[in-house]
Amino acid sequence: MSHGETLRKVERGSRIVTVVPQDTKLVLQMPRGNLEVVCHRALVLAQIRKWLDKLMFKEAFECMRKLRINLNLIHDHNPKVFLENVEAFIRQIDSVNHINLFFTELKEEDVTKTMYPPPVTSAVQLPGDPEGRKVDLICDTMRAAMENINPHKYCLSILTSHVKKTTPELEIVLQKVHELQGTGNVPPAPDAVSAEEALKYLLLLVDVNDLYDHSLGTYDFDLVLMVAEKSQKDPKEYLPFLNTLKKMETNYQRFTIDKYLKRYEKAIRHLSKCGPEYFPECLNLIKDKNLYNEALKLYPPNSQQYKDISVAYGEHLMQERLYEPGGLVFARCGAHEKALDAFLACGSWQQALCAAAQLHLSRDQLAGFGRSLAGKLVEQRKHRDAATVLEQYAQDYEEAVLLLLEGAAWEEALRLVYKYNRLDIIETNIKPSILEAQKNYMAFLDSQTATFSRHKKRLLVVRELKEQAQQAHLDDDVPRGRESDLFSETSSVVSGSDMSGKYPHSNSRISARSSKNRRKAERKKHSLKEGSPLEDLALLEALNEVVQGTEKLKDEIHQILKVLFLFEFDEKGRELQKAFEDTLQLMERSLPEIWTLTHQQNSAAPVLGPNSTANSIMASYQQQKTSVPVLDAELFIPPKINQKTQWKLNLLE
Amino acid sequence: MSHGETLRKVERGSRIVTVVPQDTKLVLQMPRGNLEVVCHRALVLAQIRKWLDKLMFKEAFECMRKLRINLNLIHDHNPKVFLENVEAFIRQIDSVNHINLFFTELKEEDVTKTMYPPPVTSAVQLPGDPEGRKVDLICDTMRAAMENINPHKYCLSILTSHVKKTTPELEIVLQKVHELQGTGNVPPAPDAVSAEEALKYLLLLVDVNDLYDHSLGTYDFDLVLMVAEKSQKDPKEYLPFLNTLKKMETNYQRFTIDKYLKRYEKAIRHLSKCGPEYFPECLNLIKDKNLYNEALKLYPPNSQQYKDISVAYGEHLMQERLYEPGGLVFARCGAHEKALDAFLACGSWQQALCAAAQLHLSRDQLAGFGRSLAGKLVEQRKHRDAATVLEQYAQDYEEAVLLLLEGAAWEEALRLVYKYNRLDIIETNIKPSILEAQKNYMAFLDSQTATFSRHKKRLLVVRELKEQAQQAHLDDDVPRGRESDLFSETSSVVSGSDMSGKYPHSNSRISARSSKNRRKAERKKHSLKEGSPLEDLALLEALNEVVQGTEKLKDEIHQILKVLFLFEFDEKGRELQKAFEDTLQLMERSLPEIWTLTHQQNSAAPVLGPNSTANSIMASYQQQKTSVPVLDAELFIPPKINQKTQWKLNLLE
Repeated sequence: MSHGETLRKVERGSRIVTVVPQDTKLVLQMPRGNLEVVCHRALVLAQIRKWLDKLMFKEAFECMRKLRINLNLIHDHNPKVFLENVEAFIRQIDSVNHINLFFTELKEEDVTKTMYPPPVTSAVQLPGDPEGRKVDLICDTMRAAMENINPHKYCLSILTSHVKKTTPELEIVLQKVHELQGTGNVPPAPDAVSAEEALKYLLLLVDVNDLYDHSLGTYDFDLVLMVAEKSQKDPKEYLPFLNTLKKMETNYQRFTIDKYLKRYEKAIRHLSKCGPEYFPECLNLIKDKNLYNEALKLYPPNSQQYKDISVAYGEHLMQERLYEPGGLVFARCGAHEKALDAFLACGSWQQALCAAAQLHLSRDQLAGFGRSLAGKLVEQRKHRDAATVLEQYAQDYEEAVLLLLEGAAWEEALRLVYKYNRLDIIETNIKPSILEAQKNYMAFLDSQTATFSRHKKRLLVVRELKEQAQQAHLDDDVPRGRESDLFSETSSVVSGSDMSGKYPHSNSRISARSSKNRRKAERKKHSLKEGSPLEDLALLEALNEVVQGTEKLKDEIHQILKVLFLFEFDEKGRELQKAFEDTLQLMERSLPEIWTLTHQQNSAAPVLGPNSTANSIMASYQQQKTSVPVLDAELFIPPKINQKTQWKLNLLE
Repeated sequence: MSHGETLRKVERGSRIVTVVPQDTKLVLQMPRGNLEVVCHRALVLAQIRKWLDKLMFKEAFECMRKLRINLNLIHDHNPKVFLENVEAFIRQIDSVNHINLFFTELKEEDVTKTMYPPPVTSAVQLPGDPEGRKVDLICDTMRAAMENINPHKYCLSILTSHVKKTTPELEIVLQKVHELQGTGNVPPAPDAVSAEEALKYLLLLVDVNDLYDHSLGTYDFDLVLMVAEKSQKDPKEYLPFLNTLKKMETNYQRFTIDKYLKRYEKAIRHLSKCGPEYFPECLNLIKDKNLYNEALKLYPPNSQQYKDISVAYGEHLMQERLYEPGGLVFARCGAHEKALDAFLACGSWQQALCAAAQLHLSRDQLAGFGRSLAGKLVEQRKHRDAATVLEQYAQDYEEAVLLLLEGAAWEEALRLVYKYNRLDIIETNIKPSILEAQKNYMAFLDSQTATFSRHKKRLLVVRELKEQAQQAHLDDDVPRGRESDLFSETSSVVSGSDMSGKYPHSNSRISARSSKNRRKAERKKHSLKEGSPLEDLALLEALNEVVQGTEKLKDEIHQILKVLFLFEFDEKGRELQKAFEDTLQLMERSLPEIWTLTHQQNSAAPVLGPNSTANSIMASYQQQKTSVPVLDAELFIPPKINQKTQWKLNLLE
């Protein structure tokens, strides 16, 4: 049967005789003449809604229970009204069993959205609790009302309201049951439920082992025994355990229980209070359960325990290859030697030097350490930092200058040379380095230009082929729309066509850069392979990368142009300036050809036009949708060549 | 009359009698019975093309001259063939006058593209010279051929070929005329033209003053006199001038002529050869005409003159506020003091220190200079560089640490503190700075979040209003398409509506940042003013900026989190980490709401659909085109929040 409330299958030929007013009954006459009464759901729900609006909860509840309408509707129909009239609801129902039934059926789902959507004429649709805390809210509101009306009478319902919460409040429930046992001094209230009864009821709702564990978690052995007795557990098993526990010092006892219940955070908190002789056990648990952060809060920062936990934490982080955080943890607790290793491993050179300072190394030791640190920094291509370390900690400004030259930090290299008055290094190293770099830049620009032109040429070919294929499609006027069709055609055209669009094998001369580029290429989303379905996107991506790579060179080029001029290598400077300008201009001129308006807008232009029909529009719209994933939208934005960046040295004009 | 070659107006009722075969004549019978002969252009051009294809230049030329067909067609019809058969052309024409006529009509325009487009049946269309050097190419090719056939006979045509070049080669022409005068020893060739005749002819082609100036430019006084005599110039004027020149030393004479002709580059070249006593005059001219670059090439780099010119150049650049280039020029010629000032002015601190080193300053002088340099660098917010200068050149590591703290370079500050073993600074300055910075970041994140939410809320309002307005449009089904209409409606709705979308006055607490933001805001393309036509774009732009501004903070936040942890300000660290994470999450969650697919594609989605008609599609397409300029396309790409950036310190979880 469908959940739609208005449709109901009946025998063919049935006739409606009447609808009973103010009721949910519909009288039908069957083809054979007999009368039948059905409660049509549309009528039922309409009636229930009316009752609920009038706060006639009793009538609504009875009817829903009889006709098995989900009880959540009582709340969901109008949450605000229900929550404000919970007392009326309870007083009208006036039955612990029925209230428990209501609790049992509660769920987060809003049945007015799923099972019983209101008819279209319904006026306002109130939004449910957006936080998805519906059940918890009802439980808490109902409990408050019941405790107000008669906590004894509604005892079991109150317990149910705790159990039904998203995180069942079993400790509270157990505590309340425990209270029912009373001390024997106060006579039980007349309509009170006995602890026995309550516990029995509870075991219907909750798994006995759960309840036992939670009772243990209260550290209240009376409670534990009470539950244990009701459970199927063997007293020979749990009694010795409880007796052992009882003999323990309170904190250690609680620790043992926490550990048994796998509540490790609580466990170390209790263990930490047991005195220093238990610290090794505590530290083991901390390491075992990775509770360093929680553990550090339990000890004062200047205690030995704090330091021990920190060292263990740091070592754990190092194992996870989290060197910098590890170093920070070591540094914070004064484990400078370990901090030094950690910071060295991750190239946090300033922190490493701070740690080294606190180890009071000899001058030679410091120099040696400086050298390893510099080596690490060079690996990470941080030449300036490496040079600072060598100059200031290893007193080796000569090596520092060489590193600066390797890192193309020309002006900083010059500064050191003048600082130490070693102008001879200009001739022996600086000038040759600059000239070498100029040569490398020339070669790099050459390869960038070649790649750019190759990709651009191929892109135009691919677009042409695609357009032809698409045209063929539109001519058919059959929206096949499946990309694979489109591209299998294209690729067959490609493989059979002339070689003009094929790539010559690339032969980059800058090895450092090319390996970097290779790694980048591997990360690419689309394949540049000829005839691959999204080859045009791959080409756009590659072209974008070439342009951005060139654009990023501006500052470096400006730096070298300045020193080329300074050392009177005007010709070399002019040559590089010209090459770079030509490269930029080539790219700039080509941008509108590559990032055309048409292709920018997903070829939106050809879709509409004097010759388009409704079919052709829909067909190509369909095609576009499938062939260009939205995620690639940024590919259709041309890269920026910033005209304002002042890379050029006008002195070299 | 139109240039179309196939249409020709004739009297109504005219009849074609016959077309003369192998000729261009068309015989018509007029309504009154008389016969008329016309050369119909279609026939004429067809015939000319045939002749040209058969290399019958004579026939083609004669016909074209008679019927006033532009002579460029001889070349343009098939440039390759013509240029390969220039000798045949000259030999067939065999007339100096006709050849000169041909030269005179030459122009860059390709007449087959403009005046005489070939009929559609024409087979191949050969592209003209792409470089637009057509005239020069014809002149040079023809001249070579004429000099080969008979240089004496074609003398005047040869001269014409020089004059007709894009840059007329008047010196060469004058030289050739001069040669015609002969030395008197060799008898003139039989068919030779006299110098007199040639000069007369030349004056028909070229303005006499131009010719006089160019003759002067050859530094050949015979030539000058020859031209001067033919000109209308008063000998009392030019003779004294020429006599004064004649008395001068050759280089000075040439300098004087160059200067007179305003050829300043040549002028300084000649003046530089006149000896050191003329250098001041030369330097003045260099300064006056801004010829520093050219002048520097005339003197050896280690000469005093080179240095003097460089200094003048540098001073010129300084006046133009080009401090860095100025400094480079000074540094290159060894003007270290001036270089120092220049590099100081632009904050090129390393270069400035190089210059200072070469001035052999005292320790105190160097320290003083270091302090001003550091001040300059702080102005440019280069705190690290400033600290390096103070530490290494002013021996003031304390001030260096303070600058590093100001620049949020916590780890570098710590390094210096440990390097100089001044751990007391940690308590007195570093920790307070870190805590202050934490507070500022908190406030900044607060204001970023507020701005973001405000703009986002307003954007949704604006979109709603726009959609309503657009809907009203579409319902009319009249594509008005004019944006102003659309938005005058919108803005009137806005001004009359409730205040919920209005901004409260912003009250940023970070003054340094807010002034930066203010400057940024001034650069914005669109107005955020409420109801402004592109307010939604302005909001997108502003939102993009807020997101990017937050995204850029990641590294700074990571840095401060590390030191907060190191100094056990865990709570402050956690607080900042949480605030930053919340800010990022708020933005991230909102991105799809702000950069919706619909608005990303220029609201392309609502254009098509089951309810759209051809009219509605076109109307909204039209509207989109006008309302969203393509330049703003990038506004529709959501900013990136890079998930991979590791800004978070897990230690603070």
